[in-house]
Amino acid sequence: MADIKKAAVIGGGVIGGGWAARLLENGIDVAVHDPAPGAEARLQAVLDNAERAQAKLTMAPRPKQGRLSFLPGIAEAVDGADLIIESVPERLDIKHKVYAEAEAAAAPEAIIASSTSGILPSQLQAEMKHPERLLVAHPFNPVYLLPLVELVGGDKTAPETIECAKAFYASIGMHPLHVRKEIEAFIADRLLESVWRECLWLVSDGIATAAEIDDAIRFGFGLRWAQMGIFETYRIAGGEAGMRHFMAQFGPCLKWPWSKLTDVPEFTEELVELVASQSDEQSGRHSIRELERIRDDNLIAILQALKARDWGAGKTLAAYERKLVDAGVVGTGEADTSQPVATLERRVPADWTDYNNHMTESRYLQCFADASDALLRRIGVDADYVASGGSYFTVETHIRHLDEVAALEPVKATTQVLEAKGKKLRLFHRLYHGDGRLLATGEHMLIHVSLETRSAAEPAPAIAVKAAELAAAHADLDWPEEAGRAVGQAR
Amino acid sequence: MADIKKAAVIGGGVIGGGWAARLLENGIDVAVHDPAPGAEARLQAVLDNAERAQAKLTMAPRPKQGRLSFLPGIAEAVDGADLIIESVPERLDIKHKVYAEAEAAAAPEAIIASSTSGILPSQLQAEMKHPERLLVAHPFNPVYLLPLVELVGGDKTAPETIECAKAFYASIGMHPLHVRKEIEAFIADRLLESVWRECLWLVSDGIATAAEIDDAIRFGFGLRWAQMGIFETYRIAGGEAGMRHFMAQFGPCLKWPWSKLTDVPEFTEELVELVASQSDEQSGRHSIRELERIRDDNLIAILQALKARDWGAGKTLAAYERKLVDAGVVGTGEADTSQPVATLERRVPADWTDYNNHMTESRYLQCFADASDALLRRIGVDADYVASGGSYFTVETHIRHLDEVAALEPVKATTQVLEAKGKKLRLFHRLYHGDGRLLATGEHMLIHVSLETRSAAEPAPAIAVKAAELAAAHADLDWPEEAGRAVGQAR
Repeated sequence: MADIKKAAVIGGGVIGGGWAARLLENGIDVAVHDPAPGAEARLQAVLDNAERAQAKLTMAPRPKQGRLSFLPGIAEAVDGADLIIESVPERLDIKHKVYAEAEAAAAPEAIIASSTSGILPSQLQAEMKHPERLLVAHPFNPVYLLPLVELVGGDKTAPETIECAKAFYASIGMHPLHVRKEIEAFIADRLLESVWRECLWLVSDGIATAAEIDDAIRFGFGLRWAQMGIFETYRIAGGEAGMRHFMAQFGPCLKWPWSKLTDVPEFTEELVELVASQSDEQSGRHSIRELERIRDDNLIAILQALKARDWGAGKTLAAYERKLVDAGVVGTGEADTSQPVATLERRVPADWTDYNNHMTESRYLQCFADASDALLRRIGVDADYVASGGSYFTVETHIRHLDEVAALEPVKATTQVLEAKGKKLRLFHRLYHGDGRLLATGEHMLIHVSLETRSAAEPAPAIAVKAAELAAAHADLDWPEEAGRAVGQAR
Repeated sequence: MADIKKAAVIGGGVIGGGWAARLLENGIDVAVHDPAPGAEARLQAVLDNAERAQAKLTMAPRPKQGRLSFLPGIAEAVDGADLIIESVPERLDIKHKVYAEAEAAAAPEAIIASSTSGILPSQLQAEMKHPERLLVAHPFNPVYLLPLVELVGGDKTAPETIECAKAFYASIGMHPLHVRKEIEAFIADRLLESVWRECLWLVSDGIATAAEIDDAIRFGFGLRWAQMGIFETYRIAGGEAGMRHFMAQFGPCLKWPWSKLTDVPEFTEELVELVASQSDEQSGRHSIRELERIRDDNLIAILQALKARDWGAGKTLAAYERKLVDAGVVGTGEADTSQPVATLERRVPADWTDYNNHMTESRYLQCFADASDALLRRIGVDADYVASGGSYFTVETHIRHLDEVAALEPVKATTQVLEAKGKKLRLFHRLYHGDGRLLATGEHMLIHVSLETRSAAEPAPAIAVKAAELAAAHADLDWPEEAGRAVGQAR
C-alpha cells in the first residue's frame, strides 16, 4: 500500500477535499465523487486553499502533482484505485451503502479507509465482502497541514492493512497513530469532546464568553500542547520527583467538585504506577531539567513564529518587544553626527547559527540591512514615507567577514555615510561584538526608488537634505580601508 | 500598580520562581521568601533556566534586570513591596497565615496576588484586614514564557485592584484574562481537568499509553490550539454556514456515549444562539475563508518553528522535507561540469519578504550561502567531513541586486568556480527567477579552516582535488563581468 498510485475520495467536503489535496501534492492521482449539488466548486475552494498553504509548507522542491478528476459515480471513481477514502456524513447506513458500491467496482485488494470521527470500524465493516481491507484513518482539519492520523482496525481488519497504512501515511508526511483498542471517538476526539462539553457549560452558566475561553486556551496551555502533550507537561511540573510525585500531589484534586463532571477513575496505586511507568518510558531518557529546556526552546520558537504572524500569543510578544525596543532604542535618538552613528544593538538569536556553530553568513547581511533601516529612519524614511511610495533598494553589497560570533552573544553596529547624492546613498557599516572586536564590515549602495514604478526616482527633498547633512558631517572621517574594494581581481 | 518597583514573592518553587524571573527581567526588584530547606538553591535553578530562555525570547535589547534578594521572613520580604505574590501550597490555612503576616508588615496599598490554581478569592480574602487589595493572578508554567494570567477578584476585591493588575501584567508581556465570575479552577484549569480525567480513563482502561495520548494531542489539535481556541476552530469547521451550523451538526453527538462523562448542558435554542452570537463577536470580522488562511499560515509558521527544533510535529515535517529534497535534489547528481553547476532550486518562503514587498536583501545572501553549501557538498564537504574538523568559512562577499522577486515565486541558482587553490575557493553564483530573469549575482571568497583552531588550514587532499577539477572544468567559461568588481570607488 505504500505504493499508492491512484486513490478515490468519496465525499469532497472539508475532510475529503483536504485528503484530495494531500494526496495530489504527493503525486497521487485522485478521483473524487460527491453527489451533492455544488460539490465540485466546494472541492475546488478547498484545493485552492490547500495549494497556497502547501506552497509554503516545506523548503523542498515540490513533487510533481497528481491528476485530479471529479466523477459522477462511485464505480467510476474507485476504478483502478489502490486506496478508497470514505469521507461521507457520519451515518452508518450511508457508509454501508458506499462500501457496497465501492466493493462491487473496486479491485478486491484496494484498501478502504474511513475518515469517521467516532464510529467503530467493526460496525463499518460488518456487511463487507472483504472486511479485512477496511480501517479507520481519522485525520484532523486541515488535513493538508496537520500530521496526525488515527488508525483503527475492527474485528475483521487484517494486521497487514494496518501495517501498510502506517507506512503509506508516513510517506505522505503524516504521523500515523495506531489506536490499538477499538473505542468510540478513538483518542483525540474523546479529549476534544470532554473539553467541548466543559466549554459549553462555561458559556451556558455565563462564566465566560467564547472569546474568553479561546484566549484561556491559546495564550496558555494551547502553546504547550503544540509541542508536548499533557503527560509530558505534567511530568515536568512534578519537578525532579517526576510523575509519581505529580500524581500524588495533584491527583486528589480531581475529586474536588471543580468541573462539571466528576466521575473519576479509582486512584489506586496500580493506576499511579501505570501512568508513572508509561511516563518513564515516554520521557525518561531526558532529565526534568533537559525536558524544561526542550520545552522552553520549543515555546520560544512557537512564540516567535506567531510573532511574525502578529497573531494570538505572538501579538502579545510583539507588543512587549516593541515596548522594549522603544525603551532601549538604537539609532533614533540625538547622536554625535561627527562620528559613525550607532544603528544596531542586539543579541544573536539562537537560530541564527549554522553547522559551523557561529552566526551564519546571511545573518551578517541581516544585521547590515537592519542597520541600513535604522539609518534610513534617521533621515526620515519611516513607515509613513514608505506608505507614500518612496523607499531605498540596495543594489550592491560588499562584506568582509573578519571574526566569528556565537548564539546569544551581543553585537552592535555603526554606520558611516560615504556618499549621498541624488538617488544614491552609499553606506559603510561596521559590526562589532559587544566586547569591541570588529566582526565584519559592509559597504552598500542604495538607490532611491518609486514603489509605484519600481524604478529609480529622486527622494523627497526633506530626505535628500537630511542624507546630505549626514554625509557632510561624515566627510572628515577616515576613509575605511575596506570601502571600494573587490573580492578578488577581475580577469 | 502599573508602576511596580519592588515585589515580594512568597514561595519560591516552580511558580514563585517563574514569577521572580519574569519580574526581574522587567527591571523589578524581587524579594523572595521560602522557608523550605534547599529553597534558595531550587529558586536559583529556576532562575538559571529562565535566564537562558529570556535571552532568546525577544529580539529587543534586554532591559536592566531587577535585583534579587532571598530573605528569612515574610515581614522582611514584603517590606517596601508594591506587589506581594503568594505562591505557597494549595491549602487555605497556609494561605491565610501568609496574608496575616504580610498585612502586618506591608504598606496597606500593596497588592496581594495569589497564584492559586483554583481556590476562590472570596475564601482567600475572608480574614484579611484590607481584602480589597487581594486578587487571584493565576499564571501558567513556565511563567517566564507563557503569556496567560487569569485575574479573578472576590466579593471584596476593589475594581481598581483588577484594573491596575490588568495594566501591570500587560506591561510585563502577559495577556491578562479577567475571569468575571468567581468560580473554582477559573477557566483554563477546568478545561485541563476535564481532559486530564479523560486521559486517566484511557490509561486506566488500557486503551492508550501516556505517549500515545500525548501524540494524539501534539500532532493534532494541540497545534491548532497554539493559535486559535476551540470555538474559533469549530467556527471554521462549520464552513461558511458558521457556528450555528456547526452546533446543529455536531452538538447532538455529545449525547452519544463516547467519553466517560456525559452530563451535557441542555441543548436549547438559547444556548445555540448564545454560543453562535459570541462566536460572531469574536471572529465575525473575518470570513470563514479568511479564518482558514489565517489558521493555515499560523500552522505553517508553528510547524516550521518546530521543524527547526526537530521536535514533535516539526520532526515529522523535517523527515517529509528530507524525502522531498532527496527526490528532487539539486546539486548532488551527475552534472555537465563544463557549465556552471545547478546548486539551488526553491520557492521564496512567505516570511522572507520585507516592507518593500519583495525578498529582503539578507535572503539573497542566504540563497548564495545555500548554493555555496551545495557546491561544497559536491566536492566532498559533507556532514562527515565537517564532523572530522574541516570546513570552509566565507571571508568576503560581493552582491549585485538586479531584480526583485516576490514571496512564493520560484528561484534557482548556478555556481561557477573562479578559483580553487590551496585554502582558497572563489565562487560566483547567479540567482535566477524561475522564469529565467537574472535576479542577482554573488561573488564569494571562501577559506578552508580547521574547526579546532578556527584558523586557515589546508583542505583534505580529496577535497582539494575535486575543487581543482571543477575549477579546471570552468576555466574556459566566460569571465563574469561582475567578478572582481567593487561597490564604488576607493578614495
